[in-house]
Amino acid sequence: MNDIKSKIKLNMELTEKILVNFIREEVRSAGFEKVVLGLSGGIDSAIVAFLAVKALGPENVLGIMMPYKSSSRESLEDAQRVVEATGMRVKKIEITDMVDAYFAKEPDISDLRKGNKMARERMTILYDYSAKEKSLVLGTSNKTEILLGYSTQWGDSASAINPIGDLLKTQVWELSEYMGIPKEVIEKKPSADLWEGQSDEDELGFSYFLADEIINLLVDERYTKEEILEKGYSEKTVDSILWRIKTNQYKRKLPLIAKISNRTMEREFRYPRDWGI
Amino acid sequence: MNDIKSKIKLNMELTEKILVNFIREEVRSAGFEKVVLGLSGGIDSAIVAFLAVKALGPENVLGIMMPYKSSSRESLEDAQRVVEATGMRVKKIEITDMVDAYFAKEPDISDLRKGNKMARERMTILYDYSAKEKSLVLGTSNKTEILLGYSTQWGDSASAINPIGDLLKTQVWELSEYMGIPKEVIEKKPSADLWEGQSDEDELGFSYFLADEIINLLVDERYTKEEILEKGYSEKTVDSILWRIKTNQYKRKLPLIAKISNRTMEREFRYPRDWGI
Repeated sequence: MNDIKSKIKLNMELTEKILVNFIREEVRSAGFEKVVLGLSGGIDSAIVAFLAVKALGPENVLGIMMPYKSSSRESLEDAQRVVEATGMRVKKIEITDMVDAYFAKEPDISDLRKGNKMARERMTILYDYSAKEKSLVLGTSNKTEILLGYSTQWGDSASAINPIGDLLKTQVWELSEYMGIPKEVIEKKPSADLWEGQSDEDELGFSYFLADEIINLLVDERYTKEEILEKGYSEKTVDSILWRIKTNQYKRKLPLIAKISNRTMEREFRYPRDWGI
Repeated sequence: MNDIKSKIKLNMELTEKILVNFIREEVRSAGFEKVVLGLSGGIDSAIVAFLAVKALGPENVLGIMMPYKSSSRESLEDAQRVVEATGMRVKKIEITDMVDAYFAKEPDISDLRKGNKMARERMTILYDYSAKEKSLVLGTSNKTEILLGYSTQWGDSASAINPIGDLLKTQVWELSEYMGIPKEVIEKKPSADLWEGQSDEDELGFSYFLADEIINLLVDERYTKEEILEKGYSEKTVDSILWRIKTNQYKRKLPLIAKISNRTMEREFRYPRDWGI
């Protein structure tokens, strides 16, 4: 399957240039100079931090670490590695008091619900800092996560602009190596870090390498399911990916508004986000 | 200006029917039977509650009251009036502990930032109940608010489906009278209730009646600014409304993703929210 993998190889130099320019231009066209992002210690926020620092300079990039009491010490150490490698500004705000105050009211809450509440709490903090420091919120969700719906709606998926939302997870890895992100961050197992030992790939039931090959064929190359199966991929994995992409479509949509008037939001009334700046 | 006002009069019977059917069909096509909404005591959440109860029955509609310690007692009483008039289910979850835990870390936080943090906290609770009770989150933002940007991004503006997002504020009032919503709720001054005595219209600097006339001409009838001024409206008000509509466009957009691949989210990759259900 080498022919497939080569299709999703990026021109690193060009991609980095496009993404750095994207950040610089979109931040400035929105009337901002600075950005803020959540720094989890994972690869996605690390690459966004690296790109942002190249675009705007380290003094204009604030990373906020927002651990919960059960978050791993390693995640904080990895986030710190990114701070040291880039020279960006950093702040730590523990979310434990806020979310525990809610969990106390919901004693039977599941781990999944807890994880979503935490992801949304982090969004509220990033947006508060966006107002406090007049900084645009950078998104850190990659295309694989967005398509598989492996994210929290209005939580980690909410941002002003997202430089990596069109990069597959494996492309994030490749570009991270090219950009010299600390290897501890690149090499660790991807995890949402909601509980000890959590692993994205265990939860999904397939590796990101496999998922990205299939996503590339399905989405970018517009293969049918049958054409993909002919290439030798397991039907169970292809079905699981298709099911996830389709049933999570709602996470990629704004609220659906009942149409009554001549011009309804985002139907006939459509403008770019920096309209009027 | 009677000719203008008549243009924004609704056919009440038809509008109610469209909105009730919208809720029923969209909730079921998403695989749900139940809905949840924030019940503030204001007119917008009241009319959505009335519509939802007509669509799904009172047992399938949960209103959550989420007061902060400074919220007015009157707001809770008005919310209770809506509960009694509809027979819907109700729950009260005070947000004070959660948001105060954050405010303690940000001693210099402004009232505006506080208000936005509270609106987002309420969203996180509605979405947690959406998961807990397998209920779709109903939006309660009207078209006037959405256009003027008088809302919190990823806060009260976040929902799955919004039955009133294409109704102007004055149309919400008219339809509320038609549907028999308690008159205390209809007649009180619109307020975000973030502090004692807050009034939407004082903050905006114009009345909703005036705003809706101008919005109707600008947005639905596609008048130019010059054509509106010829009708005798004050330039200051028209400019203020235009400025608000344009500079708040970002609140009506999903995160902007840097384009790299063949098919980017919501660019070439576009499907309805209930795709695959």
